[in-house]
Amino acid sequence: MRDLVRAVVAFRDRRDWRQFHQPKDLAVSIALEAAELLEHFQWKTADEAARYLRVRRNRDRVAAERADVLILLISLADVLGEDLVAAARRKLRSNDRKYPVARARGTAKKYHALRARPA
Amino acid sequence: MRDLVRAVVAFRDRRDWRQFHQPKDLAVSIALEAAELLEHFQWKTADEAARYLRVRRNRDRVAAERADVLILLISLADVLGEDLVAAARRKLRSNDRKYPVARARGTAKKYHALRARPA
Amino acid sequence: MRDLVRAVVAFRDRRDWRQFHQPKDLAVSIALEAAELLEHFQWKTADEAARYLRVRRNRDRVAAERADVLILLISLADVLGEDLVAAARRKLRSNDRKYPVARARGTAKKYHALRARPA
Amino acid sequence: MRDLVRAVVAFRDRRDWRQFHQPKDLAVSIALEAAELLEHFQWKTADEAARYLRVRRNRDRVAAERADVLILLISLADVLGEDLVAAARRKLRSNDRKYPVARARGTAKKYHALRARPA
Repeated sequence: MRDLVRAVVAFRDRRDWRQFHQPKDLAVSIALEAAELLEHFQWKTADEAARYLRVRRNRDRVAAERADVLILLISLADVLGEDLVAAARRKLRSNDRKYPVARARGTAKKYHALRARPA
Repeated sequence: MRDLVRAVVAFRDRRDWRQFHQPKDLAVSIALEAAELLEHFQWKTADEAARYLRVRRNRDRVAAERADVLILLISLADVLGEDLVAAARRKLRSNDRKYPVARARGTAKKYHALRARPA
Repeated sequence: MRDLVRAVVAFRDRRDWRQFHQPKDLAVSIALEAAELLEHFQWKTADEAARYLRVRRNRDRVAAERADVLILLISLADVLGEDLVAAARRKLRSNDRKYPVARARGTAKKYHALRARPA
Repeated sequence: MRDLVRAVVAFRDRRDWRQFHQPKDLAVSIALEAAELLEHFQWKTADEAARYLRVRRNRDRVAAERADVLILLISLADVLGEDLVAAARRKLRSNDRKYPVARARGTAKKYHALRARPA
């Protein structure tokens, strides 16, 4: 991961693109790449999505969209001087408290819905 | 990163949430978390965004949204049996070819617009 | 509809909000409201979505999100001096050519996939 | 508008596409079309966006994306048996209460931020 972060920053700086990396514009681009990822599943049932993903070429295209999102997340963390992975570790610990295993097990409910009902 | 992937998978499995992690639903959730990240910049100019991000509490909230996107990307790569970081490295190499330094330097043009004009 | 457009513009102008209605910021807000609409369906199967929508209160909330998107579309058309409904009529005619009934009937394929195969 | 709604429904039914119009899938498509609209503004400053929109061809493409969102909103309202315009009128009245002119005038603050401070 550390290597990837370095590669992302080097890619950007060799092109002198740091100037375009306003946090708002990076956030816009993350949303747009997330939409391109989602587009692969448009109008598909779960079964059709599974069949689609059995084809190697499609899986590679989905992986490339996912990569675009990750590269932009790294870029956003970089311009804000932060560590993407450390923040994710903190968030996971916070989710651990928000979604206690005893209540959250086997349900897709959001944490505020979880809190509203007995364990 | 390897630790983070393990932690994300363990978090999911302790809650028996693997059953909800259909690729399409993960892609929907990635788009939704990306929107929550973008929401921090809604109606803000670049200056207002910079001022907003100077406040620690805001920066932490933005980092938490970014973390949510990353956690879901890891989850999607996991259910497809793929390596998120390796795919990003491949994508970066492909971008290296799509955006040759000589043409892409200092311009925010898309690669198809770059190809259309002389170097 | 004409009344609605007038009401949207009057709502905006009474608050002196025209100054915030940069086309880019309106486009960002349209994407964000579309995400709030989509959020109602997050982690739901088709059956669960149907059950959710049978509850009046949920249907009203979904209608309110839909309304937010429409209000922003009207606002964007207004700042660009255009007619939202006329453009939709034109688009529908263009879709009529892109998706000929003989080929498009009963299939969710995109128009470029439709063109690739015999009628 | 009434004519447009009729045309949208007729377009769909001639192609036998009602079967694909699950509310969740329509919501996904609305988010995707909103992203395509936003894409026109990616990496652009307000000035660059204004210049871009001065070109007729670009304005037409933006209008077409806006139309796609509207057509899908109409489709979603239709499968739920609801009136898109009536809901928007109701939402506007509710916004009127959430954003009282005296407090909201000239500020882009959200309603919960507005409530927190004196008029």
